[in-house]
Amino acid sequence: MPKYRMVVAYDGTHYAGWQVQPHGVSIQATLEARLAQILRQPVAVTGASRTDAGVHARGQVAHFLVAKPPDLTRLLYSLNCLLPADIRVLELEAVPEEFHARYSTLGKLYHYLLCTSQAQDPFARFYAWHYPYPLNLAAMREAALLLTGTHDFTSFANVPTEGAVARNPVRTLSRLAIIQEGAQLRFEVEGNGFLHKMVRNIVGTLVEVGSGKPRDLQQILQARDRRCAGPAAPARGLCLERIFFS
Amino acid sequence: MPKYRMVVAYDGTHYAGWQVQPHGVSIQATLEARLAQILRQPVAVTGASRTDAGVHARGQVAHFLVAKPPDLTRLLYSLNCLLPADIRVLELEAVPEEFHARYSTLGKLYHYLLCTSQAQDPFARFYAWHYPYPLNLAAMREAALLLTGTHDFTSFANVPTEGAVARNPVRTLSRLAIIQEGAQLRFEVEGNGFLHKMVRNIVGTLVEVGSGKPRDLQQILQARDRRCAGPAAPARGLCLERIFFS
Repeated sequence: MPKYRMVVAYDGTHYAGWQVQPHGVSIQATLEARLAQILRQPVAVTGASRTDAGVHARGQVAHFLVAKPPDLTRLLYSLNCLLPADIRVLELEAVPEEFHARYSTLGKLYHYLLCTSQAQDPFARFYAWHYPYPLNLAAMREAALLLTGTHDFTSFANVPTEGAVARNPVRTLSRLAIIQEGAQLRFEVEGNGFLHKMVRNIVGTLVEVGSGKPRDLQQILQARDRRCAGPAAPARGLCLERIFFS
Repeated sequence: MPKYRMVVAYDGTHYAGWQVQPHGVSIQATLEARLAQILRQPVAVTGASRTDAGVHARGQVAHFLVAKPPDLTRLLYSLNCLLPADIRVLELEAVPEEFHARYSTLGKLYHYLLCTSQAQDPFARFYAWHYPYPLNLAAMREAALLLTGTHDFTSFANVPTEGAVARNPVRTLSRLAIIQEGAQLRFEVEGNGFLHKMVRNIVGTLVEVGSGKPRDLQQILQARDRRCAGPAAPARGLCLERIFFS
């Protein structure tokens, strides 16, 4: 069966996350329903990343199979006409049978936004965590450096309510930069893979470090216990920016 | 009576505009209601610019009078606690009696955003006009240059449904730049004052020029007839960025 790859951007504010859920509307279910409507056949969409409720994406990647090759230009156009305005398919192309949105992934880039001004920027209210308190940026960057590299990230992984726990909790963070632009802090987190809520748990812990809470990142990593790290940062600040393939 | 000046940012998507309206919720009425609630007295708020329904602001300026001086730090904090998340007061300070948000204004800066990618960026859906068609940027910039300077802008002014027509339709546009960043076009429009819907009518006309419609800007200006210029660009793309005072 012909296989297709799409790049999807979405404002996750009003969704229960990427994955089909018993309650709430998911991005995946919305895409599957529109594809089925246009192609007049059931279509299963597999995403590279199962983003949580309220998390956004500019570069989610997904694949699907169809019985016979559709006109891709028309399909892309029809999809974006039928999809709600908070989901858009940016790219659509045929891929070889071996391609798999999840298993062919080499790495991912997430951005996490913090709004540190006294009054929250109204335009960032769905896209940033409002944190109007002093932060020690140098301490945060030093802590971030300790997390960079290959580690067992069990302490930063939530146990998913559905689906299995990752068998191997070792991941490589190739980059964890904290960029300040005016009153906005942007965490740029790149790695070969991420455990459940790992980015948000890392950001939550780094913000604790920045606000002066004594935190030994090496000890947290070694503990391999979720209770040792800080709380997860809110979903709204997180955006899946890009997924890397070979 | 002590006088105060505030800088207000708002996402205008869900409002009937700045000014108190018989139907729909306005930014002005929302601010007045919250100020009255906190200060326990009726408060009239006067804005520098009467932005239309759906238009945004990052730097609206307004003034109000109160019977006796409030604690400004507490007032600012309380206001932002009580206001809906799409309106935020960014600055609040005492001003001399002579200050008037409308009459003390020396100039204003507006931005207008166009999203030109095939599929609209879902994050820009409330903040940009989606125009996925080819545009001749050079022709638009040439036309923009003809509008820069001091002119009678009657052809670019709607007759307001309420309130009087400006007695003097001569305005000075000090800058009308068109900046391209990826798939986004940003019109930066700065001038000493603007007639009703003037920015949106200018953008709508420049987009006509860019899409190849023969348009003589000098002739349009000279006609002093609204029907000669192009249609208004949609409200959602417009944002009042800054207001200049002496």
